[in-house]
Amino acid sequence: MLKLFVGNKNYSSWSMRPWVLLKQAGIAFDEELVRFDSFDADSNFKKTLSGLTPTAKVPVLVDGELAIWDTLAIAEYVAECYPEKNLWPADRAARARARSICAEMHSGFTGLRGNCPMNIEAALPEVGALVWRDKPAVRSDVQRLVQMWTALLEEHGGPMLFGDFGIADAYFAPICMRFNTYALPLPQVAADYVQRVTALPGVAAWIADARAEKDFLDFEEPYRIKR
Amino acid sequence: MLKLFVGNKNYSSWSMRPWVLLKQAGIAFDEELVRFDSFDADSNFKKTLSGLTPTAKVPVLVDGELAIWDTLAIAEYVAECYPEKNLWPADRAARARARSICAEMHSGFTGLRGNCPMNIEAALPEVGALVWRDKPAVRSDVQRLVQMWTALLEEHGGPMLFGDFGIADAYFAPICMRFNTYALPLPQVAADYVQRVTALPGVAAWIADARAEKDFLDFEEPYRIKR
Ligand SMILES: N[C@@H](CCC(=O)N[C@@H](CS)C(=O)NCC(=O)O)C(=O)O
Ligand SMILES: N[C@@H](CCC(=O)N[C@@H](CS)C(=O)NCC(=O)O)C(=O)O
Repeated sequence: MLKLFVGNKNYSSWSMRPWVLLKQAGIAFDEELVRFDSFDADSNFKKTLSGLTPTAKVPVLVDGELAIWDTLAIAEYVAECYPEKNLWPADRAARARARSICAEMHSGFTGLRGNCPMNIEAALPEVGALVWRDKPAVRSDVQRLVQMWTALLEEHGGPMLFGDFGIADAYFAPICMRFNTYALPLPQVAADYVQRVTALPGVAAWIADARAEKDFLDFEEPYRIKR
Repeated sequence: MLKLFVGNKNYSSWSMRPWVLLKQAGIAFDEELVRFDSFDADSNFKKTLSGLTPTAKVPVLVDGELAIWDTLAIAEYVAECYPEKNLWPADRAARARARSICAEMHSGFTGLRGNCPMNIEAALPEVGALVWRDKPAVRSDVQRLVQMWTALLEEHGGPMLFGDFGIADAYFAPICMRFNTYALPLPQVAADYVQRVTALPGVAAWIADARAEKDFLDFEEPYRIKR
């Protein structure tokens, strides 16, 4: 059985991607949550993960003897192991496009990621309004997302970015969570996509777990002092 | 015919990866160099690229109607189009490992990338010595590279990371260039790998073009005022 190591579900955006991918695709897996006590070398988090992989980050997918780190490598591995799930689009050009946007997410959108860290259980529209007013990098990241989602939904006809659910949607699911939390302005077609992603059973299951966590980590929430 | 858009060969580490991959694998392609005049919205660079892809960065691989951006998506596309070239390792576990380290490179090593930007034609051992003394993030990135390369060379027997040349080596080629330029200390086994990568015909061809460029861009070289 595959085993996925994840961090706190309320906060760990990278962990969310492969978990939602596996869940929504109906692929069975065990999971182990390694709490973010801290990211210091002597934290329980780092000590647990460093036995598994050289980077000691989450997520990690373990398949027998093999430990795979990094969301993109995990996604490719799962897609290879379950070709019948069509986790990448079947069409070669669409598949290349899906990989381009996932790679763009993987190393980009640092304005949005840095200023609006994932925090599923919180409603922070005031924080969002300030960020929106003061951070051009957030506005340009959102503009790029709107352009990307609008074009793909139009081209493939929805409901997901490439028609049916796949890796690209799992990749942008944590971004959808940020729109929910920070209430950043979105045109209707993009807001509807956020709603549809939020309602996917695999995403809803992660959200439910995140809400049940009730674990306040101050280093993840620089903008407030308690829940 | 495939067409690859690249930036200045002396500076553009991301462009180097797919160019070296195609060249060293013996895959024919046209290329177009878009000079880094600046990255402002009204630069020739941005205006040229924004007609091709939404991110307007290099590299971009064009195949007929399809424009693929981001090195990882380009690498996956080329690997799919030329399965007989074995650009990823044939073994599934080794392939997952190769993807893990490429994804790790794609979003990581920011200490080394930020402090030692690629500058192929320059010899900057004094800059390297200062960085080495003052920047723990550079030292820990190098430590991780040494551990990665040593383990893979031992496990697969060399000469490249997974035996024969592949995407992983193309991915770390710009890192090898930095060791040449900044003369950062390396144990012998890692230094030998840097030498072997530098000597690959596909890498040597890129280096020759980079040396011929003689284009000084001050915003790429904050540590000196002229060549
Ligand atoms: N590029 C990695 C990023 C993983 C990552 O940064 N994970 C965070 C949690 S969301 C982590 O483990 N941080 C611990 C640390 O930085 O030491 C991926 O895509 O998997
Ligand atoms: N994640 C991208 C990074 C590409 C990238 O940042 N390219 C640089 C040149 S090495 C660029 O085009 N910069 C222009 C800009 O940032 O506007 C990839 O892997 O292709």
